[in-house]
Amino acid sequence: MKGFTLWFTGLPCSGKSTLAEKVKDILLERGMKVEVLDGDVVRTNLSKGLGFSKEDRDTNILRIGFVCHLLSRNGAVAIGAAISPYREIRRRVREMVSEDAGFVEVFVKTPVEVCERRDIKGMWAKARAGEMKNFTGIDEPYEEPLEPEVVVETDKESVDESVARIISALEAMNYIPSAGGDEYTAEEEKKIKERLKALGYI
Amino acid sequence: MKGFTLWFTGLPCSGKSTLAEKVKDILLERGMKVEVLDGDVVRTNLSKGLGFSKEDRDTNILRIGFVCHLLSRNGAVAIGAAISPYREIRRRVREMVSEDAGFVEVFVKTPVEVCERRDIKGMWAKARAGEMKNFTGIDEPYEEPLEPEVVVETDKESVDESVARIISALEAMNYIPSAGGDEYTAEEEKKIKERLKALGYI
Repeated sequence: MKGFTLWFTGLPCSGKSTLAEKVKDILLERGMKVEVLDGDVVRTNLSKGLGFSKEDRDTNILRIGFVCHLLSRNGAVAIGAAISPYREIRRRVREMVSEDAGFVEVFVKTPVEVCERRDIKGMWAKARAGEMKNFTGIDEPYEEPLEPEVVVETDKESVDESVARIISALEAMNYIPSAGGDEYTAEEEKKIKERLKALGYI
Repeated sequence: MKGFTLWFTGLPCSGKSTLAEKVKDILLERGMKVEVLDGDVVRTNLSKGLGFSKEDRDTNILRIGFVCHLLSRNGAVAIGAAISPYREIRRRVREMVSEDAGFVEVFVKTPVEVCERRDIKGMWAKARAGEMKNFTGIDEPYEEPLEPEVVVETDKESVDESVARIISALEAMNYIPSAGGDEYTAEEEKKIKERLKALGYI
């Protein structure tokens, strides 16, 4: 199985890590090797000492990209889940990984108001209160991807629906085998049965 | 194939990177996935901004260890080739990797005089002249491994001999298949054919 990098990008609290973990579980079940590199893991193990200036944040993203590149060119699925707000840096990561592995960008398109309402770790509140600087969505821009391979809208669909769409996209791109090989989805199966009934075969 | 980390440690110019590259080529030929993480690669991609204080050097080694861990637990062979002068830090890397992959320490035991004579990049000369501080072997200690899995003495044996001993050790520890695996050598094959002919089968 060819390795690839699945790169989640989106605002703080858009749902990147939640989706990354769920997708990871499904890929592990299908027998793939998977690593999730989210912002927190990397801040601890690769980027201690880096701050939140534009330059330091870019360096952080490029490091995640470097490790994703190594993992995916060795046959694993590397899942990056960091805000990665800048198009240019995401482009550089894509370019690096694409040298010898697949690259799939997932834009977690959650409106800023929804992210702020979720505010799982209280970071949005801190940033609004001025206690955190350089916060993406408040005093730092988030540059939406122009041509992501997948877009998920976590305010309009459930986590499971978003995950299913990501998995379908990976199957369609032949990065992962279909669940159960050539079997039909529940929906497809239903349609086929209806068809067969209409034709009088069952 | 189970992944593992092959960790070279030794003085500057002891021969770590040379051996790492040769071992890499052999493992690639045997169909394994291999990445070499030497000091230079890592300084560029993972540790820009880190200096040469004890703390920064330790952080650098732990980062290499972190990436080796990720690679080897996903089935690749990660080859670390950095001076890694401190026992305690090497112990921490070993502990981390050993959680879910193999760890093989190779002590490149080259006497300090030999390393200094080689001085490929002129670093020993600079350090002797006082132009480089915190240089392992001059004003920083090198703590020899107490129980490395392999010891190579590059002043007493050729590069090929050292490489062969490392490969043999990896085979003996069942980290890599023997050359040719279960196939027959040309000579064995000849004998078998003769036998089959003699028996009238071919």
